[in-house]
Amino acid sequence: MIQVNKHIQDLKPSATLNINQKVKQIRSRGETVYHFGFGQSPFPIHDSITTALAIHVKNNNYLPTNGLELLRDQISNFLNKHQEIQFDSDSVFIGPGSKELLYQTILILEGVFLIPKGSWVSYLPQIKSKNGNYEILETLFKNDFKLTSEVLEDYCKKNNQVQKTLILNSPNNPTGAVYSDEELKSLALTCKKHNVIVLSDEIYSQINFSKNFSPSIATYYPELTIVFGGLSKVFSAGGYRLGFMALPKGLQELKSIYTSLFSETFSAVASPIQYAAITAYKYEYSLQNYVKESSHILKIVSEYIHANLVSMGISCTKPEGAFYMMIGFENFKDKLQSIGIQTSNQLANYLLENYSVALLPSTDFYFQKDEFFFRLAFVDFNGEEVLKAFKNFDGNNQEFIKIHCPSIYYGTQQIMKCINHLI
Amino acid sequence: MIQVNKHIQDLKPSATLNINQKVKQIRSRGETVYHFGFGQSPFPIHDSITTALAIHVKNNNYLPTNGLELLRDQISNFLNKHQEIQFDSDSVFIGPGSKELLYQTILILEGVFLIPKGSWVSYLPQIKSKNGNYEILETLFKNDFKLTSEVLEDYCKKNNQVQKTLILNSPNNPTGAVYSDEELKSLALTCKKHNVIVLSDEIYSQINFSKNFSPSIATYYPELTIVFGGLSKVFSAGGYRLGFMALPKGLQELKSIYTSLFSETFSAVASPIQYAAITAYKYEYSLQNYVKESSHILKIVSEYIHANLVSMGISCTKPEGAFYMMIGFENFKDKLQSIGIQTSNQLANYLLENYSVALLPSTDFYFQKDEFFFRLAFVDFNGEEVLKAFKNFDGNNQEFIKIHCPSIYYGTQQIMKCINHLI
Repeated sequence: MIQVNKHIQDLKPSATLNINQKVKQIRSRGETVYHFGFGQSPFPIHDSITTALAIHVKNNNYLPTNGLELLRDQISNFLNKHQEIQFDSDSVFIGPGSKELLYQTILILEGVFLIPKGSWVSYLPQIKSKNGNYEILETLFKNDFKLTSEVLEDYCKKNNQVQKTLILNSPNNPTGAVYSDEELKSLALTCKKHNVIVLSDEIYSQINFSKNFSPSIATYYPELTIVFGGLSKVFSAGGYRLGFMALPKGLQELKSIYTSLFSETFSAVASPIQYAAITAYKYEYSLQNYVKESSHILKIVSEYIHANLVSMGISCTKPEGAFYMMIGFENFKDKLQSIGIQTSNQLANYLLENYSVALLPSTDFYFQKDEFFFRLAFVDFNGEEVLKAFKNFDGNNQEFIKIHCPSIYYGTQQIMKCINHLI
Repeated sequence: MIQVNKHIQDLKPSATLNINQKVKQIRSRGETVYHFGFGQSPFPIHDSITTALAIHVKNNNYLPTNGLELLRDQISNFLNKHQEIQFDSDSVFIGPGSKELLYQTILILEGVFLIPKGSWVSYLPQIKSKNGNYEILETLFKNDFKLTSEVLEDYCKKNNQVQKTLILNSPNNPTGAVYSDEELKSLALTCKKHNVIVLSDEIYSQINFSKNFSPSIATYYPELTIVFGGLSKVFSAGGYRLGFMALPKGLQELKSIYTSLFSETFSAVASPIQYAAITAYKYEYSLQNYVKESSHILKIVSEYIHANLVSMGISCTKPEGAFYMMIGFENFKDKLQSIGIQTSNQLANYLLENYSVALLPSTDFYFQKDEFFFRLAFVDFNGEEVLKAFKNFDGNNQEFIKIHCPSIYYGTQQIMKCINHLI
């Protein structure tokens, strides 16, 4: 019997990856699944980035631990120009995905981590794996599950001795909600008052359905906000595994700690990938347009689903960015319980088995198991094809989606069918 | 004042990376340094691998957490054919460098970690960063600083209650020593008797100066040996950041723990890099020859340095693989102390300042500070050029090295000059 770290042993494989494998299994049997479970960009990587990678295949040198200087410069510029937040390039660190950078940050920081209900699946497992302290902060559907400064203030007042780190994600996975400037200002005030460190996960920033980027709490709270981002979502390059974080003025003392931990773990990110990322963060006009067009498509898809599901009485958050919305079957709870469905997990299985629809139950996002909410990811379409077809888009959402995003169209129909059977 | 994990805070940036930056600084002032400090392969990546990477630049999918199935198959084959050890492809895990995989293994395993004196710089910082228990096991110059089964047996007898994990590295960094089959058999017996888990770091396996690969303790102790390897050394692709580990039969229960921890940290290794690695581990004839030829050059370089330094009375380990040897100034201790040099660190600085020679003091490899040993890495030459010149190599080592590896030649002269000044 091998003795292992029990906090790591208790981890489960990430739910997001799990559902994807379940769907793969079903599909490999030749059966159809409408896959609203997995959140990977459906679009190809822009040619300028793949071309840059091809040019740099021979780069076999270990790069500086914190990342290539040129890339850190470029990201500093990018954040300044295209996210309107200021970080010196010296404060930018490159890692193999923002997830790894978040993990190392959580390893480094002591104290309690605050997670708003309705946050990304990996925050809590990362904290649990180090036996860290945490608190799930309550959020409400009427606010699109966004954290309010009142809830934060209340927690901080009652726990003023301990160091607090808030993990904030906007645009949000799983809700698609984007915090407004007003909301961020208000949260920033509370954070400042209580010296709360903020890990601001802005990995979807430029996938915004009405603006070029999403507001950042770093604008209003530059003192203690660490900003995270990367290639995976905005640049459709999840497979490239490159993320960054930017350290604020108030946390410069952590720089050498990060450098040391990086140098004893992943050393540096793959060199050819870092060179390719320079091109991404130059964010030239053609690339900006590509991101805008992709975001526009995602907006249309989200609006189609949202309108249809809301018309059936399903409670939906209104996505303003990213790939997701939360959908709730709260109005059908009695009916569902009468057919023996007591938990969101049971309902997820029921939907997959009877309607071939894959959704992630909200327990993975820190909801109670009897809250009938789910994350719906709306990226189950061929982005390359849809981008081409979009050149001739005539404004008819329904027709466009039926023809070019059939899995979205029929998957939505399936959910509606389920409701029709229930009522 | 931010509260941080004090075990991580106490880490220093890896000494290997540090000396490299010091040398870069001196060189940027236009001064010459004979750089025996940094151990990066001097050869280009083989064309077949860079071509494979170029073909796969568009792969933007997240890959399975444990790695691409084809790659794991290929590594399983490679280990079987070219390292003569047996692991199912299901037991092979891919990570962003074998360093990261070692780190996660150290995070997972409880108990005490055993490190032979004269081991790679990162093992101990990784253990310290999690506040783990460890013991440095004594080794002797007369054995090329290889661990003997007697020393291991002695430790195990006295500590039979606690779970023990031995970290073994052959070919060895910093000594260049390769454990023989007999030595490994003997260590394996002791490990078996005491249920010691072995982390066998075989990252240099095929860089062997007399055989196609180096013996593995997994051959004699397949029950509990985890084998680590990767692209960095054998395939000259440190900048690609891809490593693997292979889990033995007796540790299959750890599989799901690794998968979970991977999925909450680095997710998976960069997709294009994994596709390129398939070509590396196919290890076709031309690539085998390339590795052999590169190893031959390293052998000639090592023999040149070894013969010259030994002739001066310097104590040198005899490299049989990898990029390194340990060199000791034990015979000149009195002289050195008489000019105020009490520690290997002081001597390293003295050599850098007065003779422009960069060496790593052995304190980084778990020696006492008054042991005047150093790691000498013999890769400060242009591998591409040397490979070309090697086509016409006429057997005259000294001439060849003087012309084609001038930094090796003059660096060796500088060390000899230092000795001449001392005696």
